[in-house]
Amino acid sequence: MHILLTNDDGIYAPGLKALRKELMKLGEVVVVAPATEQSAAGHSITLLIPLLVQEVQDDDKNFLGWAVEGRPADCVKLALMELLPWSPDLVVSGLNAGSNAGINVLYSGTVAAAIEGAFYRRTSIAVSLEYTKPKLDFPPAAVLARQVIEQVMAHDPPEGSLFNVNIPSLDKGPIKGIRTMPQAINPYLEEFDRRIDPRGRVYFWTTPSLRTQEPHPDSDVYALAEGYITVTPLHFDLTHRGLLQDMNEWKWTLKEELRT
Amino acid sequence: MHILLTNDDGIYAPGLKALRKELMKLGEVVVVAPATEQSAAGHSITLLIPLLVQEVQDDDKNFLGWAVEGRPADCVKLALMELLPWSPDLVVSGLNAGSNAGINVLYSGTVAAAIEGAFYRRTSIAVSLEYTKPKLDFPPAAVLARQVIEQVMAHDPPEGSLFNVNIPSLDKGPIKGIRTMPQAINPYLEEFDRRIDPRGRVYFWTTPSLRTQEPHPDSDVYALAEGYITVTPLHFDLTHRGLLQDMNEWKWTLKEELRT
Repeated sequence: MHILLTNDDGIYAPGLKALRKELMKLGEVVVVAPATEQSAAGHSITLLIPLLVQEVQDDDKNFLGWAVEGRPADCVKLALMELLPWSPDLVVSGLNAGSNAGINVLYSGTVAAAIEGAFYRRTSIAVSLEYTKPKLDFPPAAVLARQVIEQVMAHDPPEGSLFNVNIPSLDKGPIKGIRTMPQAINPYLEEFDRRIDPRGRVYFWTTPSLRTQEPHPDSDVYALAEGYITVTPLHFDLTHRGLLQDMNEWKWTLKEELRT
Repeated sequence: MHILLTNDDGIYAPGLKALRKELMKLGEVVVVAPATEQSAAGHSITLLIPLLVQEVQDDDKNFLGWAVEGRPADCVKLALMELLPWSPDLVVSGLNAGSNAGINVLYSGTVAAAIEGAFYRRTSIAVSLEYTKPKLDFPPAAVLARQVIEQVMAHDPPEGSLFNVNIPSLDKGPIKGIRTMPQAINPYLEEFDRRIDPRGRVYFWTTPSLRTQEPHPDSDVYALAEGYITVTPLHFDLTHRGLLQDMNEWKWTLKEELRT
């Protein structure tokens, strides 16, 4: 199996290193990842500045892949179009430092990289580890991630299938199991800290205190909090089919109006 | 009606100015938009640097709103949580210079801002104008955008409804009508231009030549190319329900493995 590995924490992130070690048990792994941290990059891409690319070796001086001065989605695009010596059977993004469940799926650079892989009809899997302390224990989480990935691939999912995997913090005790779960949709009630700079200008800091409503029991956020590994199949057709059907009854008109 | 207006081209963009003029016919409009251009920002958000905020006036020295040194999604969050004097009935993002149809929905900062509004259960509408020449004619397109928005609001859509509107280039001739359409899902076959910098480093430019397969006739990309204004209802629950149902039959296991 040929595997493209990327992330949004940067090519030197410990989560990527731990996951690469595990993925090498499944096949040939090449890394194309951002040169620097790109958390909360969402699905941003680079259009107007050049993408610098540098070949990178691992600790044993073996070929690791390429560092790209760009976004996670840029890395996948560039890997598929230009850099990889083969067409990958699997695109993996992670292992992210911090969970990407609920609407974080839309903010996440980790998930965006996997979505980019799915755009090009590759089976793509984003993997994230819940954050509970500054120093995360990635190697055992990477073993779990690899077990989930093995089982996903064993089911031979349809071309371009996309999965979002979240692993609970191992500090919370033994993993309770693996659950297939839909994405939660609750918003975060963020708090901002308003300040005045030395020049009298107003600025706001976002704060880490993200409050959210109690998630639905049948959701990724809930199951992850309960100690389950969650696997959520995703798609990138954002069309709201129910509303679309209602709207087909709408009568649209366009009035001639003077340009004002 | 209270309207929050934002965009991804920046607070001084001509598309925003033209759309604001039209929206003022529908109610009270306050702008909270990025201080600088943020195209292809996707749903990125700012976590680790401060969001500078500056009050801005329009050409007539009337209050326009606030410029935020951040991403489109930051602007909506900050507007709803901190800046606006009221809770908006409607969040509008645009008028973007360039269409946001098909998978561009996921790359677009314009659409991300509208999605952010929908996270917080506000009716949200992204509006984009197809790009065919360097100088776009925004005022007549803004008249069309306002007519579409009026009709959407007249249907009193469910709380938190989200719409993506694309207006064809007016250079292509008269608008053929308005069509409710699903999002196209074809990838772009991008070309990169590989170069070597004066220090011998490899870099790639993305190029504007985006090729894509022929879009499905029942898609936003197709109808827009044909000269129709397209309206696509969106949602932000990315769960692939069909695959989820299949996966509920999967048997998951977790093996005890030695940490290596």
